[in-house]
Parts: sequence; C-alpha cells; structure tokens
Amino acid sequence: MFFHKQELQFKSTPDKPDAVYARKLQEVLGGQYGEITVALQYSFQAWNSHVPGKYRDMLFGIGSEEFGHVEMLATMIAQLLEKAPLGITDDAVQSDPAIAAVIGGTDMQQAIVAGAGARAVDSNGNPWQGSCITASGNLLADFTANANAEMQGRVQVARLYHMTDDHGVRDLLSFLLARDTMHQNQWLAAARELQEEGAENLPVPSNFPIKKEERSVSYQYLNFSDGATAADGSWASGPTPDGKGEFSYHDGPTTSAPMPPPTHPDARFYGTTELPNTVEKVAGSVQDKLRKE
Amino acid sequence: MFFHKQELQFKSTPDKPDAVYARKLQEVLGGQYGEITVALQYSFQAWNSHVPGKYRDMLFGIGSEEFGHVEMLATMIAQLLEKAPLGITDDAVQSDPAIAAVIGGTDMQQAIVAGAGARAVDSNGNPWQGSCITASGNLLADFTANANAEMQGRVQVARLYHMTDDHGVRDLLSFLLARDTMHQNQWLAAARELQEEGAENLPVPSNFPIKKEERSVSYQYLNFSDGATAADGSWASGPTPDGKGEFSYHDGPTTSAPMPPPTHPDARFYGTTELPNTVEKVAGSVQDKLRKE
Amino acid sequence: MFFHKQELQFKSTPDKPDAVYARKLQEVLGGQYGEITVALQYSFQAWNSHVPGKYRDMLFGIGSEEFGHVEMLATMIAQLLEKAPLGITDDAVQSDPAIAAVIGGTDMQQAIVAGAGARAVDSNGNPWQGSCITASGNLLADFTANANAEMQGRVQVARLYHMTDDHGVRDLLSFLLARDTMHQNQWLAAARELQEEGAENLPVPSNFPIKKEERSVSYQYLNFSDGATAADGSWASGPTPDGKGEFSYHDGPTTSAPMPPPTHPDARFYGTTELPNTVEKVAGSVQDKLRKE
Amino acid sequence: MFFHKQELQFKSTPDKPDAVYARKLQEVLGGQYGEITVALQYSFQAWNSHVPGKYRDMLFGIGSEEFGHVEMLATMIAQLLEKAPLGITDDAVQSDPAIAAVIGGTDMQQAIVAGAGARAVDSNGNPWQGSCITASGNLLADFTANANAEMQGRVQVARLYHMTDDHGVRDLLSFLLARDTMHQNQWLAAARELQEEGAENLPVPSNFPIKKEERSVSYQYLNFSDGATAADGSWASGPTPDGKGEFSYHDGPTTSAPMPPPTHPDARFYGTTELPNTVEKVAGSVQDKLRKE
Amino acid sequence: MFFHKQELQFKSTPDKPDAVYARKLQEVLGGQYGEITVALQYSFQAWNSHVPGKYRDMLFGIGSEEFGHVEMLATMIAQLLEKAPLGITDDAVQSDPAIAAVIGGTDMQQAIVAGAGARAVDSNGNPWQGSCITASGNLLADFTANANAEMQGRVQVARLYHMTDDHGVRDLLSFLLARDTMHQNQWLAAARELQEEGAENLPVPSNFPIKKEERSVSYQYLNFSDGATAADGSWASGPTPDGKGEFSYHDGPTTSAPMPPPTHPDARFYGTTELPNTVEKVAGSVQDKLRKE
Amino acid sequence: MFFHKQELQFKSTPDKPDAVYARKLQEVLGGQYGEITVALQYSFQAWNSHVPGKYRDMLFGIGSEEFGHVEMLATMIAQLLEKAPLGITDDAVQSDPAIAAVIGGTDMQQAIVAGAGARAVDSNGNPWQGSCITASGNLLADFTANANAEMQGRVQVARLYHMTDDHGVRDLLSFLLARDTMHQNQWLAAARELQEEGAENLPVPSNFPIKKEERSVSYQYLNFSDGATAADGSWASGPTPDGKGEFSYHDGPTTSAPMPPPTHPDARFYGTTELPNTVEKVAGSVQDKLRKE
Repeated sequence: MFFHKQELQFKSTPDKPDAVYARKLQEVLGGQYGEITVALQYSFQAWNSHVPGKYRDMLFGIGSEEFGHVEMLATMIAQLLEKAPLGITDDAVQSDPAIAAVIGGTDMQQAIVAGAGARAVDSNGNPWQGSCITASGNLLADFTANANAEMQGRVQVARLYHMTDDHGVRDLLSFLLARDTMHQNQWLAAARELQEEGAENLPVPSNFPIKKEERSVSYQYLNFSDGATAADGSWASGPTPDGKGEFSYHDGPTTSAPMPPPTHPDARFYGTTELPNTVEKVAGSVQDKLRKE
Repeated sequence: MFFHKQELQFKSTPDKPDAVYARKLQEVLGGQYGEITVALQYSFQAWNSHVPGKYRDMLFGIGSEEFGHVEMLATMIAQLLEKAPLGITDDAVQSDPAIAAVIGGTDMQQAIVAGAGARAVDSNGNPWQGSCITASGNLLADFTANANAEMQGRVQVARLYHMTDDHGVRDLLSFLLARDTMHQNQWLAAARELQEEGAENLPVPSNFPIKKEERSVSYQYLNFSDGATAADGSWASGPTPDGKGEFSYHDGPTTSAPMPPPTHPDARFYGTTELPNTVEKVAGSVQDKLRKE
Repeated sequence: MFFHKQELQFKSTPDKPDAVYARKLQEVLGGQYGEITVALQYSFQAWNSHVPGKYRDMLFGIGSEEFGHVEMLATMIAQLLEKAPLGITDDAVQSDPAIAAVIGGTDMQQAIVAGAGARAVDSNGNPWQGSCITASGNLLADFTANANAEMQGRVQVARLYHMTDDHGVRDLLSFLLARDTMHQNQWLAAARELQEEGAENLPVPSNFPIKKEERSVSYQYLNFSDGATAADGSWASGPTPDGKGEFSYHDGPTTSAPMPPPTHPDARFYGTTELPNTVEKVAGSVQDKLRKE
Repeated sequence: MFFHKQELQFKSTPDKPDAVYARKLQEVLGGQYGEITVALQYSFQAWNSHVPGKYRDMLFGIGSEEFGHVEMLATMIAQLLEKAPLGITDDAVQSDPAIAAVIGGTDMQQAIVAGAGARAVDSNGNPWQGSCITASGNLLADFTANANAEMQGRVQVARLYHMTDDHGVRDLLSFLLARDTMHQNQWLAAARELQEEGAENLPVPSNFPIKKEERSVSYQYLNFSDGATAADGSWASGPTPDGKGEFSYHDGPTTSAPMPPPTHPDARFYGTTELPNTVEKVAGSVQDKLRKE
Repeated sequence: MFFHKQELQFKSTPDKPDAVYARKLQEVLGGQYGEITVALQYSFQAWNSHVPGKYRDMLFGIGSEEFGHVEMLATMIAQLLEKAPLGITDDAVQSDPAIAAVIGGTDMQQAIVAGAGARAVDSNGNPWQGSCITASGNLLADFTANANAEMQGRVQVARLYHMTDDHGVRDLLSFLLARDTMHQNQWLAAARELQEEGAENLPVPSNFPIKKEERSVSYQYLNFSDGATAADGSWASGPTPDGKGEFSYHDGPTTSAPMPPPTHPDARFYGTTELPNTVEKVAGSVQDKLRKE
Repeated sequence: MFFHKQELQFKSTPDKPDAVYARKLQEVLGGQYGEITVALQYSFQAWNSHVPGKYRDMLFGIGSEEFGHVEMLATMIAQLLEKAPLGITDDAVQSDPAIAAVIGGTDMQQAIVAGAGARAVDSNGNPWQGSCITASGNLLADFTANANAEMQGRVQVARLYHMTDDHGVRDLLSFLLARDTMHQNQWLAAARELQEEGAENLPVPSNFPIKKEERSVSYQYLNFSDGATAADGSWASGPTPDGKGEFSYHDGPTTSAPMPPPTHPDARFYGTTELPNTVEKVAGSVQDKLRKE
C-alpha cells in the first residue's frame, strides 16, 4: 500500500515562469529515463521479486521515493507554466518575435490539453510507455538496468542544469542530482553484493549450464568493422571479467554457414516463387477447387 | 558503409517447423532487448561518438555483427513457419484441438501480413521502436546500458532455450548465448577501462561539478518503505562505490518542504478555481468582451 | 454505408495563413479528444450496439456528423498552411527572428511529409491511435465516456479560440463550440433516459449481482493522503448517488492483508532467489542435464 | 511524498495457478482503464489542480489508494504465473493439446521477458501509455472522465469475474468491484457538488462566454443517418440538461457552405496541381535557378 | 459532409460464430493496410489536394466507399463473436482443450474491453495509428501508395479467404476481393493518366530540377551484397523506366568519402571525449564557475 | 552477414551548424519513409523471400546500401548539431529572440537525451517503428511498396533541399536524390519484369482463383461522393490495366443489404440490451446464482 503526504521532499518552486523549460523538464518526468520509469521499474522489480529480504526491501524503499520525485517535477512544471505566455492571443502579439519564439518552443499540449499543467510525456510530447520498464526477475541484470537508468537520468539532469539560470529550478535539480548519485552508488553496491554472496554471477544468467553455450566463440572479439584500434582495448586480450576465459581478437567472423534456401510456404499465402513452384500453385488451386466446390 | 555477404555467421535451420516458437523467437529479434535494438544502439553510439579510436572502433565492430544476428533470427523464423499450420483451412481442422491450440499460440500477422515470414516486432506483436535505443554520448553510461542489454538478452535467450527441444534451434541459441557472454564481458571491460584511464568516473557524468549537487543527501539511503532489512546491505553503510562518501541509512526522508500553493494560470484556460478567482474570470471576460467587440 | 457531399457543414476558411495555428488545430482533429476520436467512437458504439432503435440511431446520427467535422478541420488546416512560411529557404531568412520563430513553432511534418497539408496527428505530432476510442457495449458507461469526450473537446476548442484573432478561424470554432454544447447535452440526456427507463443503473454495470461485491467497503471513503478537508464533500457522508448506501469517511484503509511471500517460478527462468532455492536450481540443472543429454 | 507499507489492502492470492488468466488480469492493471491509469490520472489532476481544499484532497486520497491496487494486481498476477505451464519444454509436451492450448493463450512476454512476472501492459501486451490519462484542469470535465474510468473499469472487472472460478481471484475482484462502486459514486457526487456550488456548470467549460458560440445550432439534433427513431429520445425535444435551451430535431444539416477551392502552396513542395500552376512551377524553378546559381 | 444510411453495401453475416476468426478479421479492419487506413488515406489525400476536378472527385468517391467497408467488417466481427466462447467460465471448461484452444487464439480485448465487439486494432491487438496513412500532396507518389495499399490489402484478404470455410464470411471476402481488384486497377489507371497528361512524371517528383541531383549515380546499380545474379535483371542494364538514362551495374560503391572526425559539442553535454578535450572541459567548468558564482 | 567499413558513400559534412535543420533531417533518417525504413524493408523482404536468384540478390544489394545511407544521415545530423545553440544557458540569452527562435525549433531530445546526437526518430520526435515496414512475400505488391517508398522519400528530400542553403547539406541531398531516382527506376523495372516473366500479374495476388471473387463488381467505379468529373478519367470507362475487364461508372452503390440485427452476446458481458433481454439477464443471473452458490 502507498500512503501520500501533502509535502514535498524538497522545495520545488521556480523563481519565474518559463514555458520552454517546462517542456524540457518533461524529459525527466515522463521520458525513457524519467522518474515515472524508475518509480514503476523498481516497483515492478519488487512485485515480481523471488527473494524476500534486503534486496526487495531496497527496491520498495527506493521505488517509493521516486514516486515523490514524479510529484516534485509535476509541481515544478505547473508552476513554470503558471504565468508564462502560452499562446493566449494577447500575449502572443505576433509582431513580437521574442514571444513568438517562446511559444514556438513550448509543448502545445501543456496549454491546449492540460490547461497549463504537467503531462505524462517526454520533452517531445511522446507519451510515457510501459515498455520503458525493465524487470526480468534476474537481479544482477535488473540492478545493472537500474544503474544505467540512474546514469542516463543524471546525465540528462546535468544537461538540464545548464539550460536554465533559475535558482529555484537549479535547487531542485541539485537535489535530484544528489539522489541520482546515491542511487547509482546503491545499485552498483547491490550488484557487487549479489556476486560476493554468490547469488548471481557473470555471465548473466549465471545458472544457465555454461557448457550448453557454444564455448568456442565465448571470448572471441570478432571485429565486423575495419577499425584496427578496436584490438587495443582490454576487451580484446587478457582475462575476461567473468573470470572464465581469455579474450582473443579476430578480424571478422571465425565461423560461417551457407544461407539456407528460400522457404516455400503453402501456395495459398500467395508469395512469389520460382517457376516450378508456380506449377505447384496451379496444382494446389486445382486441388482446392476440387475440394471446395 | 555496410557490405552484405550471403552467408550466415552460424547455421540457422530448425529440425522441424514450429509456428508457436517462431512467435516466441520474435522477442529476441524485434523486442526491447532483441538484436535490432543492439545493432542500432551500438551503431548510433558510434555515429554520435565524440572520441575516435578504440572505443568507437569497438562500437562499430560489435554493432555490425549484431545486424548479422538479426538476419540469422529472421531466417530461422521463416523456416520455423515454412511448413507449420498457420490457419489455412485444411490444417485448421476445427475438431482437432491440437492444431487449434498451435494456431491460437501463433503470431497471426506472421501468417496474414507476412505470408509466413519474420517481422520487426516482439513476441506479442508490438512493433520494434526507436525508443528501445540508448545513446547518450556519455560512454560510461552507454556501456552500462550495453552491459544491461546483453544481460537481459542472454536471460531471454536462456529462457527460450528451455522452450524447445529442436536441435537446430538450440544450436543457434547456443551460439547466441556465447556471443552474449562475450559482449557482456566486453562492455564491462570497456566500462572499467574508461574509469582506469580517467576518461569517465562515478558518479556519471563525472565532469559535472559535484559541489553543485546537494551533497547533504548524496549518500543517504532514505527508505520510503517499511522493510527493515533494507539497512542490512552494503548500500546502507560503509564506503560508496564512487569512493567519495559513506552510506548512511534513514527511515524515510531527511528533508521536506511544504506543497506549493495551487497555480492560477490565465482564466481563459478554463481551469476550475476557488471562488475569488471566479470573480477574476468574470472580470477577465468583461475585459475580453470590451477588447474584442 | 456512408455517402459524401462536396459541401461543408459550415464555412471553414481563415482570413490569413498561420502555420503555427495550423499545428495547434491538429489537436482537435487528431488528438485524444479530437474529431477522429468522436467520429469513430460513436460509430464503433453503434456497430457493436446490442439494442436497435433510438440509442443506436442517435449514435449513427451524431457519429456521421463528426466525420464531417474532421473534414472541416482538415480543410481549414490546409488553408492555414497555404501561404505560410514553412521553411522553404527564401522565407526562412535566418536573420529574421520573426520568421524563424514561426517556423520553430510549426509541425514540420505538415511541411516535409504532407507538403503543406493536414495530418492524422495531434498538436505534438503524435499519430492518432485506435486506443483513443471507448466502446464497451454498456451504454451508460459509454454515454458517460461520450459526455466526457465532448467536455474535454469543448475545453480544448475554447482554449484554441483565445489563441487566434483570425475571424475565419473563430467562426468555425464558434460553430464547433455550439455543436459540442449540443452533444454534451445529448449524451447527458441519453444517460439519464437509460436510467429512467431502467435499462441501466448505478453502479455500472448495474446487472452484476451486487451481493457478489465486497459490500463492506462499497461506500467507504478511504483517504490515503493527509488532506483533511477531503471529508468535507458530499462524497464523504450522506446518501450515495446510486441510492443504495451512505458514504462514510476513514483515514486510510479499513482492511489489510499481509504481503504474500515471493513467488518461486521454475528455476529455468533464471530469476534470483534466496539460498535454498539455489540448491534447487542446481538440482534442477542436474535433472535437466540427465534428461537432455 | 509517497510512503510504502509492505501490506496489501486486501488478500490477493489465487487458489491455483492460471497463466491465461494472468494475461487477462493485465487489462485491469495496465490497460486503458486499468489501475495504472486511474492512479496516475487522479495524481496528475491533483498536481495540476488550481484549487486547494476538498477537491484536491480527494484526488490525492483516491489516487494514492489506486497505486495500492496496482500492487495488488501485480502481486496476484505473479502468483497466478508461479507454477503455471509457461512453455518450458517439459510442460509443453506437444502431444498434449490441453497444455498447448494454455500456453497459446498466455502473454509470452510474461514468461520470456519478465520470468513469470507482471508487466505494465494490457491483456494484448500493448504497453501502458501516458496518453491513457486525462487531466485538463477543468474539474467538471475531469470528474466526468473519472466517473467514466470507474464505470469502464468496473465493467471489465465484472467480465473478468465470470472468466474464473478461482475463489482467491474472485475475492480480490469482489473487493475491486466494491471500490469501483465507491469511486463511481464519489466522482458523480463531486461533479454534482461542483455544479451546486456554482464552481462549474454546463456546458463545460461554463465560463466561456456562451454568446461567442454559434447559438443557432446549440440545441439542434442534426441526424446525419437515416434512423428515424433517433427523434424519439429526450435528446431530440424538450428542455436541455444545461437548462439553457430546447432540443429540436432535424434530418441532416441546417447549414452548409461550399467546399473551399484547393490550396496552392509553394511550388517547391512538389504537390500536383492543375495546368496553370504547372506554368508557375516552371517559372518558379527558373527564378530559383537564377537566384541560386 | 458525410451522410450515413443504415444499409450495408453487401451482406455481412457469418453462418456461425468463430471468435478466433473475428480476431483475424481485425487485420483488414484496423491493420496497416486495413479499411480504416484506406478510408482515411484517400480522404486526407482529397482534403489536401491541390487540384480540383477528376482526381479529387475520385479520391472522395472511393474514400467514402471505404468507410462503408469499415462498417461491414465491424458488423461481421460483432456477429462472429456473438455466440462464441469468449472465456466466460461455463464455456471455458478447462478440461476441454478444444474450447481452451479457441479462447487462447482470441483477441481478449474483444471480450474484456468491448464485450464481444469489434475494435480499431489489428489482428495482434495493436491500435490503428494515424501513421498508417500516406498523403504527400504529390499524386503520382500517392496513387502508387494507393495501388500498394490495395495490393497488400487484397493479398491479406486472399489469405483470410483460405482460413475459413464459413460461406457467409467467404461471400463478404469475395466482395472485398472484387473491390480491391477494382481499386488496384483504378489507381494504376490514374497513375498512368497523370503521366500521359504530363501532370507528373518519373522520377517523382518530376518538377525538381533534375540537374540538381548528382546525375553521375542516377542510374548505377551499386550491389552492396555478393549475389551476382542481381546483374541479370532489367534493372541492371538497358533503358530506365523514366526514359532518361541507361542502367549500369557495379559491384559495390562507385564513390566514397572519409568518415568525418567525431564531433565535439559543448562540454556541458558531458559526452565522453579524448584527453585533450578533457582539458577543455576543466577549462570550461572553471569558466563556468567564474561566470555563475 | 554485414561488414562495416569506416568510410561513407558520399561526403556528409555541412558548411555550418544548424540545429533546426538537424531536426528536419531526422525525417529522412527515422521517419515513415526514411532510410531506416527502406534498409530494413528490403532486408526483411530478402530474408522472407521464397525465390532465390536475381530478385533476392537485388533486395540484398539495395538494402545494404540503405544501411549506409542511415549512417550518412546520422553523421550529418551530429555535425549539424556540433556547434549549434542547443539551449545551454549562455547561448540561450533570453533577450535574443533569434537564438530563442532557433532553440524553439530544435528537437530537444537531440540535446537532452543524445547530447547533440542523431536519434532513431522522425522530425516530430516520434520513434521509428517496425510497422513502417512492408514485406508480404508477394513481390509484385512489395516492389510497388518499394517504388512508393522511394517516391515519398524523394519528395521529402526534394522539399528538404529547398529548406537549406548549406552547400555541404545540399551536396549530400543531391546524392540521395540521385539514388532515389535510381531505386524508383529499379523497383518499377523489377515490377514490370515480374509481370513479363509471368511470375506475378494483376490483380495482385494473381494466383488467387479470380472466379472466387464477386466479379459483378470487379470493374465498377462506384462513386460515393457527388463529384461528377470522377467519371471523366480512364478509371471510369475503357479497358482495365489488368487486361481482364472494362471499367463502368455508377453513382453510388450497385448492391445493398439490410443492416443485420444487433448482436446479443452472453448477458454476463453486461452490454445494454432492449427490454426482453433484460429479462433474460435476470434469468441468467438466477441460473448463475444457482450454479455458483
């Protein structure tokens, strides 16, 4: 169960309105790596969890914080829009290019649809999607997904920080940046702990019987491009991070197989085939005629 | 530039048709973590790369291999569908529940739209989307995204391995599992190398002036749920992975702020407001009347 | 069957071009509550209707009018774009910020894709989707959906009215506003008539045997937030609109249940589990080995 | 801020596994009218609210309860999947049509992607979308949207009730049905209270100066289909629900306007035009040539 | 304006219910090449048309017929679902694999969401999208799009014909097949007429000054794959269909250019760069510090 | 298999940065008819091909070239963004409307998400989708789809040509225009060759037994609109392109059928029905009660 308190975790009030920035902030509210994503991602990971205790408790604990971040951003966006020019005729004096420029850069649905309110969309107005979430049940994979989400999210917030001079907005962003720092650290610590405890290991999933994979190519770097310096990295020679092999480097594939012949499905799918098959088709349609009529 | 060779990297021919499995395989072809995703993700990361040399060369080298994996899966799917019952009346004898069951589990668009062919969709028939891709320009974030993609992908292939007994299919999957093992190792090695070289560091992005974030909350685990064991992990006490702090544990938030008052945008957005504002609205519409008529 | 007449229901010609406004108008053409939505929503409700006569006749009668509204808006948009600067180099003199501002605010696909034409998208360029439609077969639910659609639509048209001074556009909007007034009234009248005739009732669906619902919580307002004034409304005490109960107010839930233990699906899904299950996994993979090899 | 408690509002445990039903339940978790929709819809309405006090307090109070409903359904789905056949080879004995039938009816991503877990999608596997939400800032419109959402939702839960015999599932549904009953009543009561207080009125938005709409057609039922009984309803004669007019009935439109002539945008959009314009095109390209070369 | 008549163009009643087939038929109702697509595609082409007269009249004339085809299919689907097993418990006797198989193959939203009704989705339950439409304003391109739509559509209907034995369904399909035959012929005739009249020509758009394209590669077949027989077609030698050149065949590209160096955007985007740039970054952040603090 | 070479097919470097144009170019990279579409469309057609030899070889040969075009556009876009104002505070001096106008017209996700990089989206920021692809297995239909794709694509590139004065950009476009000219010619030549060889014919699919379609309406132009000049085209009289009939012209339909009566699905779907059925419902629920309790 979730309980709501009409307080914010941190002050979320801008110094002044800024409708273009209100659109930009939508990215970290409703974008691929926005707060709706992490709130629901951690929650679904917890709901689908197969192990009670500390890992699930942490998922619940952080996921619920993120719902509050959604709220801080929605509140901030509504305030950024409050007194901003949003296309209502009198402000949109068409002879004033400064105002026209502002309006051109806004999310017009924030005005027309939400009446100067926040929406569950990204900075291009694409609705948030359930497919932004990752929750596989394998915690080493999922904690890596979470670390990535917090990294991408912090990169975006850092960029947004430089796109405004508003102290109120920057204060909120400085708070979110700090929480992203924390959460990056937490997911990385948790991924490490999973491995130290032996609960999971590399390669993920570690319980899959590794001899069932085609081990001859498990540590070969096959370079399908012509950039020679690709061989210079620690991913092309030396021991592998999973501790089970040695990297080797190869220009191009080490295996190959002939392309299988084209398929010939039932003639009644009306795919184009070579001549002999056309005969089959006629035969087929004759059979069909006999059968059906 | 890309050049195509009419050979496959590995044998991709099933022992027998299996239309339901053909649908399942779509997940690792056109799903969130399928081969189209990784092929285009690594390619966009290379095209957007800000640094020449080994990292970009590796991105190109692996990305181009993945396009070939798309091809192997598409070829396999077409063959799995070739002689399978796909709803053409004669096979779909309605009194035979075994065939009806098979047809019920197929992707009907593989039959109706593609004529027994592969499609750029996932196992539920959702079209692949450009939003599956991550390419931020920050390589530590992006290599973490790539490690995650290879982990999620290998988990899915491992599950699919147990959903068939077909030796031809399993052979292909054993090859893909091995390549996922390789690529997991490569991205993790590359992420480590970025940090050892000092090119990037934690927290991502490491170049953002860290004193601009609200450092007081950068290492606090704020548990917004009531699971007490969340404090037992290495994410709740001890040094942080970024080497810059110590974790501390707190039940709930350590900061709070009052909810800002509701916004009052221009009355001509026709949002519902409290009484005094209604008066403003009337005044507004009077002004509007005077102005416009 | 539908028959088309090359006339419009109302004059739809702007006084002057306005490409930014052409983008805004897309909202009520191809947005969530635009004319494509209501045209197809009422039509699908009619096609799926289970009752002949006045209700279905009304659905067909209004739905068909709405297709004509799609046409009026598409025609208007094409004219708003006709002589407008759309980025063709000569108008887009980059040193003129006024023109640059206009172009920045346009839907670029109206220019690049449609060649200065209307599109089946909303004001942010999101394609219209079949999921905008509601048609459940239950007419009380669906007429409520229709009333909502006409309300949201009229709110949007009212906002758009204030975003232009063009008399031609405003004339069309004044017509659409009037039709939305009519249709709001019609759906509300129809919803009332359904109840007066006893065809449907509250709660929807009224035919579901009400004793099968957990009646103890059917009229309890459980406040999961801490806003105390929530108790002050007619939704927290007094008789309920369905005439079958009395509202009561409660801070938080009146029931609770322990969280069920985490699930343990087949080990071959490779989810992360606690230690004992790891043993099971090993056992499982041994069994698997024996069985498969 | 949101706080989480590791308890459920109601017991959510099935008697037995049922993977097909787990897919069906996704509809009321992640569908157009599922619990994610109402949780976020009411929350966004609260965050965008322009009026403090009882209405906003109610929005927060109900919205937060709905997040807990998301949790109950996710938990239930994971349990329904726990021991169910999900395509792992040994259960999917292909000679057993009963098991094949079950697998055919499952959401394959619940198995392949989520490892027997719940997902943020509907019963056809379409990801939940931010565009499912309605939050316009006009509370009469939005409360009508909410009443509709609870009606559609309860209709779906009622249908799902008849699609299972599992007592554990039915118990949860009986609880959700009761809460939907409550929330239908609440939104209708709130919509009525808004009007009684004079905060909002019909037609929505009531503050728009009504004389600016084309009043001659505000109460005309224009029947664009040929179903004569459409005139028999209370929507075709008598006083209108907004109390401001009288319905009248008309076969077809009462107004018309000629179709405006086709548009002729800049020739460099390469649209097809009639002959004279072709000449203009040539001229245009000559000018263009002179200008550019 | 559109006027509706409560008649169908052709009898649309099945002999017996078939819920699985009802799902399949959704493809030609709400799929990429279904009737909603062609109805709206031809209508938008007409609304955006730049030329009055026969071409636009034809677009309107066919587009309006297609709306009636949407209606026939929706009506047919509702009837196919009418008495079909749709998961209501009593029919879904779980011990009967035949019924379970049927239910597994149905569109569950037709039951749960639409109450045994048609929906604006394809056979995999993906909602129809405005992006299915093509309307560029160039009639030669658009008529080619239309010919393609009718070809893809007829292929799908032909496949569906073989997926049922129901005479009522087959009768409707035989009618739709004939209309698709007609419309294929019409769009091809119209495309030819455009060229004979000189209104449009190859290559499309023909008015673009052809000397502005890089003519040296305008008729070279550059084979980027290794299939040698690609040179055997009429697309590799001989005169070109546009009458302006001769095809020539080349193994691979005839031109090339070095890959441009990686980009170095503003350091405050926090992209990863090589070492020298890291120095710039530090400098940048120092400047930034001086400027902002 | 695909092999990558770190060279471009043609020089792809702009003279100067232009962030607004970078957004526009996304259309031909990631739009409905952009390069990702044709690259994957031709590849899927090849993978699903049922005929070896020249047609499949051509599909592979052109498809692989198109992947290189994706690369040229991505590279160009990254360079257009490199030094452009993208909202970083110092350039976005708010008092300068010229810069504000530029920023307003950019794709904000290119800045916030990709850090000044290209993305797999169109010019409105909609992600590319797998549903942009057409691959039916019938080559006459598919080559017509390909001709259309190259026509729409060339129209868009031609429009984009006039939206910039940048010589570097125009050079790349002149190259793409020439390749589109080539590919239009190739697909049209291939479609003609298919027919000359007798592999396919009109109407598509030509193997469907034509007497099974309702031949009485196969060549009737039924004008459902009132534009009389529709009869003046070669699509309304004279021989049909398929060589099998004569066009005839008719005002409106030549056939009709009564609308079937409304459906009455199981009462437990809770659809609204007329009175007699209400009685059935009660009976049904009584039965249900008896059965279940």
